[in-house]
Amino acid sequence: MSAPGLRSFRDPASVAVVGASADPAKWGYWLAHGALRGAGRRTVHLVNRSAATVLGATAYPSLSALPATPELVVLAVPAAAVSGVVDEALALGVRAFLGITAGVGDEAAVAARISAAGGRLVGMNSLGIYDAATELQLTWGTFEPGSIAVISQSGQLGSEIASLAARAGMGLSRFVSVGNQTDVRAVELLDDLIEDQHTRVVALYLESFADGADLVAAIRRLRAAGKHTLLLTVGASAASSRLARSHTGSMTSALDVVDAAMRAAGATRVRTPDELVQAAALLATGVVPAGDRVAVIGDSGGQTGVAADLVGAAGLQVAEFSAALQDRLATQLPTGAACANPVDLAGAGEQDLTNYLAVAQTALESGEADAVLLTGYFGCYALDNPASAARESEVAAEIAAAAQRAGIPLAAHSMADGGPTVQTLRSHGVAVYPTIETAVGALAAAARLAAAPRTPAAPAVILDQPGSGYLAAQEFLRGGGIAFPAGRLIRDADALEWAAAALSAPYVLKASWLEHKSEAGGVSVGLADADALRAAFADMRAALGDGDYVVEEQDLRGDVVEMVVGARRDPHFGPVVLVGAGGVQAELHRDTAIELAPVDHETARAMVRRLVCHRLLTGWRGRPATDIDALAEVIVALSTLAAGCPQIAEIEVNPLRVAPDGAVAVDALIVETLTPTQTFAPNPERTPR
Amino acid sequence: MSAPGLRSFRDPASVAVVGASADPAKWGYWLAHGALRGAGRRTVHLVNRSAATVLGATAYPSLSALPATPELVVLAVPAAAVSGVVDEALALGVRAFLGITAGVGDEAAVAARISAAGGRLVGMNSLGIYDAATELQLTWGTFEPGSIAVISQSGQLGSEIASLAARAGMGLSRFVSVGNQTDVRAVELLDDLIEDQHTRVVALYLESFADGADLVAAIRRLRAAGKHTLLLTVGASAASSRLARSHTGSMTSALDVVDAAMRAAGATRVRTPDELVQAAALLATGVVPAGDRVAVIGDSGGQTGVAADLVGAAGLQVAEFSAALQDRLATQLPTGAACANPVDLAGAGEQDLTNYLAVAQTALESGEADAVLLTGYFGCYALDNPASAARESEVAAEIAAAAQRAGIPLAAHSMADGGPTVQTLRSHGVAVYPTIETAVGALAAAARLAAAPRTPAAPAVILDQPGSGYLAAQEFLRGGGIAFPAGRLIRDADALEWAAAALSAPYVLKASWLEHKSEAGGVSVGLADADALRAAFADMRAALGDGDYVVEEQDLRGDVVEMVVGARRDPHFGPVVLVGAGGVQAELHRDTAIELAPVDHETARAMVRRLVCHRLLTGWRGRPATDIDALAEVIVALSTLAAGCPQIAEIEVNPLRVAPDGAVAVDALIVETLTPTQTFAPNPERTPR
Repeated sequence: MSAPGLRSFRDPASVAVVGASADPAKWGYWLAHGALRGAGRRTVHLVNRSAATVLGATAYPSLSALPATPELVVLAVPAAAVSGVVDEALALGVRAFLGITAGVGDEAAVAARISAAGGRLVGMNSLGIYDAATELQLTWGTFEPGSIAVISQSGQLGSEIASLAARAGMGLSRFVSVGNQTDVRAVELLDDLIEDQHTRVVALYLESFADGADLVAAIRRLRAAGKHTLLLTVGASAASSRLARSHTGSMTSALDVVDAAMRAAGATRVRTPDELVQAAALLATGVVPAGDRVAVIGDSGGQTGVAADLVGAAGLQVAEFSAALQDRLATQLPTGAACANPVDLAGAGEQDLTNYLAVAQTALESGEADAVLLTGYFGCYALDNPASAARESEVAAEIAAAAQRAGIPLAAHSMADGGPTVQTLRSHGVAVYPTIETAVGALAAAARLAAAPRTPAAPAVILDQPGSGYLAAQEFLRGGGIAFPAGRLIRDADALEWAAAALSAPYVLKASWLEHKSEAGGVSVGLADADALRAAFADMRAALGDGDYVVEEQDLRGDVVEMVVGARRDPHFGPVVLVGAGGVQAELHRDTAIELAPVDHETARAMVRRLVCHRLLTGWRGRPATDIDALAEVIVALSTLAAGCPQIAEIEVNPLRVAPDGAVAVDALIVETLTPTQTFAPNPERTPR
Repeated sequence: MSAPGLRSFRDPASVAVVGASADPAKWGYWLAHGALRGAGRRTVHLVNRSAATVLGATAYPSLSALPATPELVVLAVPAAAVSGVVDEALALGVRAFLGITAGVGDEAAVAARISAAGGRLVGMNSLGIYDAATELQLTWGTFEPGSIAVISQSGQLGSEIASLAARAGMGLSRFVSVGNQTDVRAVELLDDLIEDQHTRVVALYLESFADGADLVAAIRRLRAAGKHTLLLTVGASAASSRLARSHTGSMTSALDVVDAAMRAAGATRVRTPDELVQAAALLATGVVPAGDRVAVIGDSGGQTGVAADLVGAAGLQVAEFSAALQDRLATQLPTGAACANPVDLAGAGEQDLTNYLAVAQTALESGEADAVLLTGYFGCYALDNPASAARESEVAAEIAAAAQRAGIPLAAHSMADGGPTVQTLRSHGVAVYPTIETAVGALAAAARLAAAPRTPAAPAVILDQPGSGYLAAQEFLRGGGIAFPAGRLIRDADALEWAAAALSAPYVLKASWLEHKSEAGGVSVGLADADALRAAFADMRAALGDGDYVVEEQDLRGDVVEMVVGARRDPHFGPVVLVGAGGVQAELHRDTAIELAPVDHETARAMVRRLVCHRLLTGWRGRPATDIDALAEVIVALSTLAAGCPQIAEIEVNPLRVAPDGAVAVDALIVETLTPTQTFAPNPERTPR
């Protein structure tokens, strides 16, 4: 699935830097300087209008003056000159362009000419490209080789990732600043990484998700190829969204949809460049936690306590060890040591460094931990007492080996960051962190990747567009198996009598065609008998006029939890399904779960488990548990219907009354349908730095 | 208010290390080595049973063999030897002891003998003491001088704070590992810092809060002396609490009470040693934000976007700038630059470094920001192009000066951590951070300190202990001004008739003496008339027997939000008051606010504002706003009553029905009273490392 057309941006046989300069304040300097570092592998041409040599190399006045046509041309000339250089290059037969220059006025036209000639453009407004394996460095800044590939819509954020990675002892396999994505888009560059053997982790920064579905598919392919993807994006705050609008002109997708898309793809989102780098350090070791149980081991009750608090706050579990495991640890540790998890060595490590290994090994082999977190002083012995350096390094290597045997990720926080023992741990494949929060953040991100990507749903059967109003929505949803109360359509008094006779009181009367019935006086509940129903119908018809009214049996079941289940079509990622607490809770406390639609029963159950109100559903304070399977089936059905009917913009059952004996929808709405031909065109995008 | 008795632990004229050793694996080495560094200022004696010299200095076989009696004795001998050394020292006239040794079996008895002689003991199980100004270093590890004082119940956590501070270019003014606090307690050491001119920030790590009220008072005094306190503690997770029990034997106070106590004291809690150090770096600059509005300035839309998201997530505001300010920034920046906040320079910095200063200055002087956060590339110019180093440093110094003139805290995140420009910023009093999350964390912690400590409440009037049951609770609460529905006590049918005649239907009937009325069938609501009331009374009396029943008028007001207001007596910090959403929301979503009691009206209003359900109270979806002043008055009243009646362990109004025209309590409970003589004795505590 690799993209052969992009090979020129990975390993060109020759490259020309147009706008090469000897002034380190200029982009042309960095591009020329970097390009020359690969001169042993490829022909490097420098183009400068006036200088005969740049950085000791021959410089030519124009592309046409070069002794041969370069495979890749780097555009680092003033904006006004770009168009002319591109035309000259195209005429010479160049088909690959890296556009560094920002603010090119006729950028779309330039890109169109490149495309028309069968060429490709990365940029404009790119910070550049780096490929460690092919010694290709066409970018501002310096890069260390390693196993992280960075694809970034913000060059500078990508560059920050690179520098933080270097600080953490890691490096990059590849770096592509996609700039304005006028031609080559991030998703193509992701596909281009699938077969790259040097890349273990993909760092992706995007501000816009116009290629949403393709992106999910590409990330799934990367994961299938053994490469984890970490996404960084903006838009969590109103201020950040404000920026996204004024900045790139593209609406940032709602973050919850992005998170759902990443779950579906088997990837996860991080909040900052450093979180990304720290998570990458753990992922680069090759193992991810299979679950959320963390064993915390340290040599200070204070430090293990702080660590346990953070692990819990990150959504992971510091589960109490079994009695058998506690007993086993107790035999390895002094009286009074904490053995329940977190484990505090209580001086045992100081007495004998081997105790660190013994306890770590016991935890790793226990079957009671999906990850082990070592925190505290280990690593400092070598610094505080050089005589113990060799032994501490031996123990470090043995701990690393024990983790590898167990196939369990081990993260270490050491107060001795930079010391020789930490080096040993790292060189033996253990991720070591300078602070406890970075270690826990990495474990949390890695644990989110434990879930396999969701199997892509089968192509949805395309359904007919439903009509409007409650009755039409009800019919559409019944078709998917969603239960409603028994009811009858009534338009007049005669029909009312038939309905009253056929249904059991108390009744509910609704004006079917109204979108917001309650606010408009279009719902009347608790109508105890036919008289009450007649009176309500007379009143409502007087107020609202003739129309499709519905009489329904009122749901009188006890121990009901009211929920909302809805779906909407996201412009970038397509249909998504949502479940949430009913009433004010979903809105007030954001107690909702969202996934790309359609979902299967297992995913629907997992969505419900994520809700805070899950505790209400499972039997709150002695009440009986509700039928969560029935709730999940409604989620599945609604997600399938929404996915199968592209004309639906939004569909909602609210409330869905979930009781111990099943789930009944008592109102439903299709808020809007789009004409089938309407599509969402991506807005023009601009991305400085 | 300084504690003169502790001077011997700050600047002793002479010190003796008993158990001095030349082996770097032993504590006796570190203590002797550190003590000798202060030999120019004080007499240092080393005691070793067998060696004649240690580290090149004379060693004596015992304290008795010393040429003079030392002021401070450091105990670094095996546990079994401690008791004998102390007795020998006391006999010689020593009155100050630093106990390093852990696991001393008869520790309480030893401490008692020291106390009886008028002496003091820091420890046992202390990691040691450091005082930069007096060159006193009696501890494991190495310390850099600076402005942070560390008082820690975990020596190793204190030591981690010291090493992280050093890594961030800061140092310590003092360090005291309080160990088991058998004699000298943390709160005394806090008081001892009040007059220390070198200390600007106090880092406090505690696992137990037996001195809660004293602690609050001491921290208030520190703040009045211009020193901010940052608290680190454990207990946020169940696992951590489990550790606290097995580890120190003392119940960790509930964290929400600790947070309330810190707010009352004018301090704040952080979660990790690094958060503490990063916040200290900002606090050490001498200004804290006066509010929560942060101006974010950077040279990359990606980086400013990430920063804005983090600032928002930390509870601070990236408020949109006024049109006038946006216009002013627009004149300073190129077309297309983001000026609304966050501000993206969009290449203006690269064109002219002075633009960083211009934009920062505009934001600092705008009156629209309580803090300015600079993020991104600034600092890298010097690294990437040494020719621009001097100019970048000049600009850095001018930015620092502008912040100082404006009196607004400026935090900088720079990709060039460690570079010369970052050094310039730091040396000019700007806190600089290597990652954006550390910068934002520091700003958030500092902003929490913007609130002044609460004025200590006037000594509460001691009230009589109320009786038990709903009626007694009602009477007690009415005494504080809390409104209940009109009602009557009834014990028989005659009284019922009088009540029915005096009150308006519908009625509510309650069995007053029951704690959990609803669950026991002791509440009947919606009794439409006297007949319904008679029937309900007959049924209830048949089921529950004779007793104090209450008939009340049912509160029929519309647009009601049900709330809970309660108070309880915390064993460490005394009375606390709580307000929360009614129903399942407080419990399910933890939508509660808590403060030390009593509170004034302003504090009560602030508590309500912190609730998520505040949006319900202020007029949810077009409903009228409720009477929040009345709600606040109930909080004030209940907090005052609870504080004034030490016999009350817990008191609660649930629900309190808050409507547009006032708040009415419709149930109340005093769950438990303690005998007035009962007090909470601190449990024995043990603190390794």
